[in-house]
Amino acid sequence: MEITPGVLLKKINNPDDLKKVSREELHQVCNELRQYIIDVVSVHGGHFAASLGVVELTVALHYVYNTPYDQLVWDVGHQAYGHKILTGRRDNFITNRKYKGLSGFPKRSESEYDTFGVGHSSTSISAALGMAMAAKYKGENRKSVAIIGDGSMTAGMAFEAMNHAGVADTDMLVILNDNCMSIDPNVGALKEYLTDISTSPTYNKVRDDVWKLLGKLPVGKTFTREMASKLETSVKGMVNKSSNLFEALHFRYFGPIDGHNISKLVDTLKDLKKIPGPKLLHIITTKGKGYELAEKDQTKWHAPGLFDKITGEIYKKQHLTPQPIKYQDVFGYTIIELAEMNDKIMGVTPAMPSGCSLKYMMEKMPHRAFDVGICEQHAATLSAGLATQGMKVFCNIYSSFMQRAYDQVVHDIAIQNLPVTLCLDRAGVVGDDGPTHHGCYDIAYFRCIPNMIVSAPMNEQELRNLMFTSQLETTKNPFVIRYPRGEGVMPEWKTPFEEIKIGTGRKINDGEEIAILSFGHPGNFAQAAIRELKTEGINPAHYDMRFAKPIDEKLLHEVFAKYNKIITVEDGTVVGGFGSAVVEFMVANNYTATVKMLGIPDRLVEHGTLKELHRECEYDAQAIAATAREMLQAHTQSAVG
Amino acid sequence: MEITPGVLLKKINNPDDLKKVSREELHQVCNELRQYIIDVVSVHGGHFAASLGVVELTVALHYVYNTPYDQLVWDVGHQAYGHKILTGRRDNFITNRKYKGLSGFPKRSESEYDTFGVGHSSTSISAALGMAMAAKYKGENRKSVAIIGDGSMTAGMAFEAMNHAGVADTDMLVILNDNCMSIDPNVGALKEYLTDISTSPTYNKVRDDVWKLLGKLPVGKTFTREMASKLETSVKGMVNKSSNLFEALHFRYFGPIDGHNISKLVDTLKDLKKIPGPKLLHIITTKGKGYELAEKDQTKWHAPGLFDKITGEIYKKQHLTPQPIKYQDVFGYTIIELAEMNDKIMGVTPAMPSGCSLKYMMEKMPHRAFDVGICEQHAATLSAGLATQGMKVFCNIYSSFMQRAYDQVVHDIAIQNLPVTLCLDRAGVVGDDGPTHHGCYDIAYFRCIPNMIVSAPMNEQELRNLMFTSQLETTKNPFVIRYPRGEGVMPEWKTPFEEIKIGTGRKINDGEEIAILSFGHPGNFAQAAIRELKTEGINPAHYDMRFAKPIDEKLLHEVFAKYNKIITVEDGTVVGGFGSAVVEFMVANNYTATVKMLGIPDRLVEHGTLKELHRECEYDAQAIAATAREMLQAHTQSAVG
Repeated sequence: MEITPGVLLKKINNPDDLKKVSREELHQVCNELRQYIIDVVSVHGGHFAASLGVVELTVALHYVYNTPYDQLVWDVGHQAYGHKILTGRRDNFITNRKYKGLSGFPKRSESEYDTFGVGHSSTSISAALGMAMAAKYKGENRKSVAIIGDGSMTAGMAFEAMNHAGVADTDMLVILNDNCMSIDPNVGALKEYLTDISTSPTYNKVRDDVWKLLGKLPVGKTFTREMASKLETSVKGMVNKSSNLFEALHFRYFGPIDGHNISKLVDTLKDLKKIPGPKLLHIITTKGKGYELAEKDQTKWHAPGLFDKITGEIYKKQHLTPQPIKYQDVFGYTIIELAEMNDKIMGVTPAMPSGCSLKYMMEKMPHRAFDVGICEQHAATLSAGLATQGMKVFCNIYSSFMQRAYDQVVHDIAIQNLPVTLCLDRAGVVGDDGPTHHGCYDIAYFRCIPNMIVSAPMNEQELRNLMFTSQLETTKNPFVIRYPRGEGVMPEWKTPFEEIKIGTGRKINDGEEIAILSFGHPGNFAQAAIRELKTEGINPAHYDMRFAKPIDEKLLHEVFAKYNKIITVEDGTVVGGFGSAVVEFMVANNYTATVKMLGIPDRLVEHGTLKELHRECEYDAQAIAATAREMLQAHTQSAVG
Repeated sequence: MEITPGVLLKKINNPDDLKKVSREELHQVCNELRQYIIDVVSVHGGHFAASLGVVELTVALHYVYNTPYDQLVWDVGHQAYGHKILTGRRDNFITNRKYKGLSGFPKRSESEYDTFGVGHSSTSISAALGMAMAAKYKGENRKSVAIIGDGSMTAGMAFEAMNHAGVADTDMLVILNDNCMSIDPNVGALKEYLTDISTSPTYNKVRDDVWKLLGKLPVGKTFTREMASKLETSVKGMVNKSSNLFEALHFRYFGPIDGHNISKLVDTLKDLKKIPGPKLLHIITTKGKGYELAEKDQTKWHAPGLFDKITGEIYKKQHLTPQPIKYQDVFGYTIIELAEMNDKIMGVTPAMPSGCSLKYMMEKMPHRAFDVGICEQHAATLSAGLATQGMKVFCNIYSSFMQRAYDQVVHDIAIQNLPVTLCLDRAGVVGDDGPTHHGCYDIAYFRCIPNMIVSAPMNEQELRNLMFTSQLETTKNPFVIRYPRGEGVMPEWKTPFEEIKIGTGRKINDGEEIAILSFGHPGNFAQAAIRELKTEGINPAHYDMRFAKPIDEKLLHEVFAKYNKIITVEDGTVVGGFGSAVVEFMVANNYTATVKMLGIPDRLVEHGTLKELHRECEYDAQAIAATAREMLQAHTQSAVG
């Protein structure tokens, strides 16, 4: 089905074309752009509601600013579909988030209009400030604009950047796109503050009114000129210097204005271009704007998958037999079961309650499960603080976002050896979101930290048992449980809990000549490979090691005593990961074997389906089987030779 | 020389003893505590000015609160000497920061009064909030107090914690200890904001005055009751809800008050104990209070080393021959030389201009070198933003603080492959500061990231050449240069620049049977070991590998072809670090050798001198020599056997 852009949009191949459109027609450009996003995403998938919310802003920015000379930095970037469509990627947009297609996020290598690669939140102000400082240093009259949501504004690094930008004296604009939403509704004091200044008569207007009224103060006997003057000075002093959170940080604050009024946006941006120094424009938008269902349920429509754009029906795959559920739901349901048995259990997640399924516990036990906002650092140290009081905290953070709290895990959890459970969802390659979101590094970056337990379940039952084990009073260490995006392998996943001895793996089957050691979910790929190899008379042993740290030395002694061909398989980087742990053991214990390490290679892996990426990275069943054949082949040849 | 506490302090073995002191005598307790800190630190060393600044606060807190039931969390913790002395560690305090002695920071394993281990800044609010949430959940009337400096308040995680605490409805108090200083003077908009509210007539007083004046408004013809009411509502609305940065975050704000007035502090804290919900008390203190020289030059007296407490003379070691300077100064002077040649070079550091010696460039080239405050995350992404504009940024961050910006390096620098130079000072064990500050993990946590170059100089010349190489236009990747705390080895360090081919090591000497592969400064330990071994007729080869990534495969082929006994030496963890890179190469290339990996073991290493810790970790010259002997011994025995 061909998707046709509207008559105006069809002619816009770049922002220069957009600038030829008359002011009066901009409204239509917005409509056409919105419709094009609906048309493409409904059929090809992708993020949805965020881009609909910034259609007018996107058009206004490219209309007013001289892009790409002036530089726009989109925070997070899943709202930048309109930007991509207006900057030369309209016709190619149907490849969005597909293997070898356009990235779902702005990306420097894709377009000169994408000034900064994004994906994780709250980087835009720092990046735009860097650009603005470079322009100032070079004497260029280049503008830098960061477009950031109110959710992203809660992350600490946004505050750090504001604190610096406020005194850096550069010509930059921060646009605060306030829609009260991240993927889930925003939380925290900042959100309430923004609601205050947005919903009461607008802040600037109140300020103006106060000035006017102060000017009208009637001076007389009981109220002297001196008193009036003092009052005015005091109020001005308070209001000017500190009445506004952003003005306290030395930003000139403008707004809030309606982010769906294209004329107002164009006028305001034109005015702001002339004002030097750090400025913040607060705009109010509706996530999902223009698609009624999305406006009403913004979490559901954040990235709905494919849907019928007319009826709003979201397509679901139909299955005839019971299917495994997602690992995240196994986590989400299991933590409730455990919390019902152990009143010390609490759940914490930084802004991923839907994505990690902690929302079930938040609904059922609101005093024991918390979404703390986009703030991985705080989430980790808060969990440490809770753990000092004997609480058993499950802190759920996607693997790639865990990078944001690395120091907090090292410094506050591991060094103090506090028994916090870190559940890393989305570990391994994550599919469509690509390199910014792949959880490739956690095995390596946590394995090197003392006191840590680093585990990965091969299936749902193992996940449940690892969770069960981590919350036992006898478990005294920080406990990482990493598991992938997507479904497990057991339709009947609700198995009884069983303690797993920490640092023990399990032998799945004995074999001959060659042993496969797997870590986590790819153990299933190994099983598939073995089934295939058996038909060829090849019979590898298989060990599901379960723990990368502490690694099961007893089992490894068994393995290296019996096999001199070893394949390690993991969905993490092959540099310093699980395979390296095996090799370090081998060398420390003076074993000699041929070891092939399969996993994510030491280069950036782009986006695609999980299957495509497992293939490309060569740790799927096919690759494991091929590796086993090669190793045996080499043996045969060398035996012959 | 015996150090004797004053008559009151002598009797205070714990906070219960302190509570027996009369209100009138508290002033004397403060004097004696201050004097005791001066007496001990002048003779035994340690942090100095920070603890002097909070003497009154420390006494007031333990006087008013029921510690350890009520929980104090000291941010950073180098100001907690008074706290240690009052909580059972007075007589033992002379062992502060010495090998096997007291830690220089609060530490849970040391005392029940140390509720949370600290060292890195800005963790206290998150930790205290965790404690407060646990108390609320358990129904305990336990108070939590975070004591945080204005410098620490600029780090993003403090903001994240405030944003959560503002809505978490727990009974916690944040004490903002405002002295305008970190180690260096604070920077940023927040600092200016705090100065505003501190130096103008105090904020609360102004607010009260405004209320009073508004009440006196004379209503008449020209100024109606309606207008008066509107004015009052408007001003109240603005001032109440958003007039104060902290109130915008839903904290009740109190202060600023004089942090050296013990009576006022005691009264205020008693009052605050009765007020529920999140509260912030802003106190103004002077770092170094009570020791005049320290008050005047707070950076110098942050941790002055040993000094004559009467004359204020800081003792310096005397040397008869020219000595090597510190690596940090080689960095500090070299970046200026390079910047004079290359106008694209900029320097960035998050609050370590003295510690990393970027201050020289900040003085000489203020428009090209920046202290951005305690905000490693922002510093990294800002550097990435600058790099997109063709700037060559040297971002200098201590190794252990680099953990704070891990995601920013991965997501903003490495994934975009931006040529930012990350200079990691204080890499390896750092000495007195102990486990929170040791830079043990950077080789492992950066080696697993694609695109990264990870290097370490063996001496000053190598550091200069690595810096030179990193800023060349031909260098296209993120470039890590890690080097240790303290002095190098070359009195004549100012050598001419020479490009180093990226990913190449150098052979220092050929040898027999055994090869030592070193990474960075410990190459000097290897040289010392070889000198010793040669006297015994043992002659190991030595390779200074220079790069852990990309590792010099050509050189490694040479090594593994020639030697089957290998020792790797690094001042980083042996899990996943440089040694693992060597072993991964060996396995991938089907070499067989005995490899012993020396470095920081996989457990927490406590504080001590560098020499003591190198010894304990067994990678000093003595340990390298012993390892070589053992490996040859094993060989001889097995040959005999």
